[in-house]
Amino acid sequence: MGHPFRARLGANENGFGPSPKVIQAMAEAAGEVWMYGDPESHDLRAALAREHGVGIDNVMVGEGIDSLLGLIARLYIQKDTPVVTSLGGYPTFNYHVAGFGGRLVTVPYDGVRENLDGLAKAAAREQAPLVYLANPDNPTGTWWEASDIQRFIEKLPETSLLILDEAYCETAPSSALPPFDTSRTNVVRLRTFSKAYALAGLRCGYAIGEAETVRAFDKIRNHFGMPRITQAACLAALEDKDYLAATVAKIKACREKIAGIATAQGLNSIPSATNFVAIDCGSKAMAEAIMQGLLERSIFVRKPGTPGLDHYIRVSVGPDEEIARFEKAFGEAVTTVRNQA
Amino acid sequence: MGHPFRARLGANENGFGPSPKVIQAMAEAAGEVWMYGDPESHDLRAALAREHGVGIDNVMVGEGIDSLLGLIARLYIQKDTPVVTSLGGYPTFNYHVAGFGGRLVTVPYDGVRENLDGLAKAAAREQAPLVYLANPDNPTGTWWEASDIQRFIEKLPETSLLILDEAYCETAPSSALPPFDTSRTNVVRLRTFSKAYALAGLRCGYAIGEAETVRAFDKIRNHFGMPRITQAACLAALEDKDYLAATVAKIKACREKIAGIATAQGLNSIPSATNFVAIDCGSKAMAEAIMQGLLERSIFVRKPGTPGLDHYIRVSVGPDEEIARFEKAFGEAVTTVRNQA
Repeated sequence: MGHPFRARLGANENGFGPSPKVIQAMAEAAGEVWMYGDPESHDLRAALAREHGVGIDNVMVGEGIDSLLGLIARLYIQKDTPVVTSLGGYPTFNYHVAGFGGRLVTVPYDGVRENLDGLAKAAAREQAPLVYLANPDNPTGTWWEASDIQRFIEKLPETSLLILDEAYCETAPSSALPPFDTSRTNVVRLRTFSKAYALAGLRCGYAIGEAETVRAFDKIRNHFGMPRITQAACLAALEDKDYLAATVAKIKACREKIAGIATAQGLNSIPSATNFVAIDCGSKAMAEAIMQGLLERSIFVRKPGTPGLDHYIRVSVGPDEEIARFEKAFGEAVTTVRNQA
Repeated sequence: MGHPFRARLGANENGFGPSPKVIQAMAEAAGEVWMYGDPESHDLRAALAREHGVGIDNVMVGEGIDSLLGLIARLYIQKDTPVVTSLGGYPTFNYHVAGFGGRLVTVPYDGVRENLDGLAKAAAREQAPLVYLANPDNPTGTWWEASDIQRFIEKLPETSLLILDEAYCETAPSSALPPFDTSRTNVVRLRTFSKAYALAGLRCGYAIGEAETVRAFDKIRNHFGMPRITQAACLAALEDKDYLAATVAKIKACREKIAGIATAQGLNSIPSATNFVAIDCGSKAMAEAIMQGLLERSIFVRKPGTPGLDHYIRVSVGPDEEIARFEKAFGEAVTTVRNQA
């Protein structure tokens, strides 16, 4: 619309921004930009391996989770290969599945949570080589406990590779994250620097899994795809644990604030383990009208389009000023919509 | 080997480095890294369109030419699809062709230049949907004039898409670059910020072609793959025309210097339109021994492995100090090898 949003709260970015040490690392790496980055991302992978207590061969780095999902789709999907995911789950995964000719088998949410039993049954019934699960979930923000995830993994056919998308793991209760088991060949876990680390604009995600499974990426990936500056920034981000802890605390406080803004308008929201909160607007029509009202006030939020989830709007966390603007605009939009109803 | 090279002259990088304005633009963009980049790379594509006198719809941006080659391979190749290229041409293109199951049809060089007639004949004979040509060429540094390229294009079957890789176009004589004809559906031209612009570590390449041909990338590309900082840096690089002109002058002078270093040892080199020079070491064994001697002196260069080209070593341009180190080490290596022979 030709002008910046007054509050950019729709893309699940992290408006608290990255560590100053990361900005510093980027500035230092900027002068070396004439050199190709390390095609093995060795130092970053080694740091991630240490961080998670796995081997360096269990870690692969890529241009965001989106890119890793594309590589997995390419490795596992041929024409009409069945792929199981939730109805309303991450659309970019579906895009890659469709792009490689796969057949999406979708399982509706069970309320506001992904249906683990349903997903496992669909995987077994279809003998699906790929199953996608986000924990915590996008777009609802809900999560399953590690024990539930473990049971789910054990129910899956051995020939089904679970893509466990943990983009939001840093803001989740630690009880939601199973320990890494890199002996298991049918689980790949995906993580990112885009969310808690606030580096969405850099594009760096990583996969952790059994070594042979992970090494398969090497056969098809864009070997020089990871910019030097990205590798340097992510290394610095990993090292600044105090900053991460402070950001996660801010995100949690902001989730509460967003939930409180909904409550003040008599609306519920879903408890969230992510960097966004889904507010229940009561109906699809209400949600659309409120989102439109926010847009008119130059506040950017998004909403799911899937039946069963389409009465929510999804609001990302952000700095106090932006949340204050959201609060004012949201109150006005809700009031206007209610007066029109 | 655990220590940095004393001269990094093997990867066709540009050791003269990017414009200070680019470094400045990267520093300014660093603070915005928490936001996803524009998935359309609108401003950068608009600037490239203005630069080259084409429409914005004729321009697609991607994570380096490597990534664009991967997308083209995916769009055009199915199992056993014939793909024509030169024997000894860009190996990453071959990697993508093989990765999508294509069948490489290779045409030997005609001396030190790609064989245009041979490539056109192979394309017609095989009814190949893809033909790859680098102009200027890597690894020889040679080039064809625009009129020769035009004739080659006209000889190709209409159903053969020519991938014209012009990674080194900025350092080539302008007479080597045909005008853009975006009405032609069977030519896609690839360019990059990695070479003359010295941004290899950022990964940004672009394709220029007929609008529908170029728009096909949108169906499969990683939409959020272009980091904000990359878009900002490349925009700044495009704008600083004085710096580019100065760099190109330095590259030309350095090519002369490298050729002179070869001459001083009684060796020929191939006149180059790129940012590297191929030195004729007389035989494959001599080339290997000299490269090994350079490596022992911590000087990084590369050599082609293809018969007919394997008696060359390929030396990238670089700052005076590095070239001076190369000169000394090269002289020692040649002398040592000759004494052993």
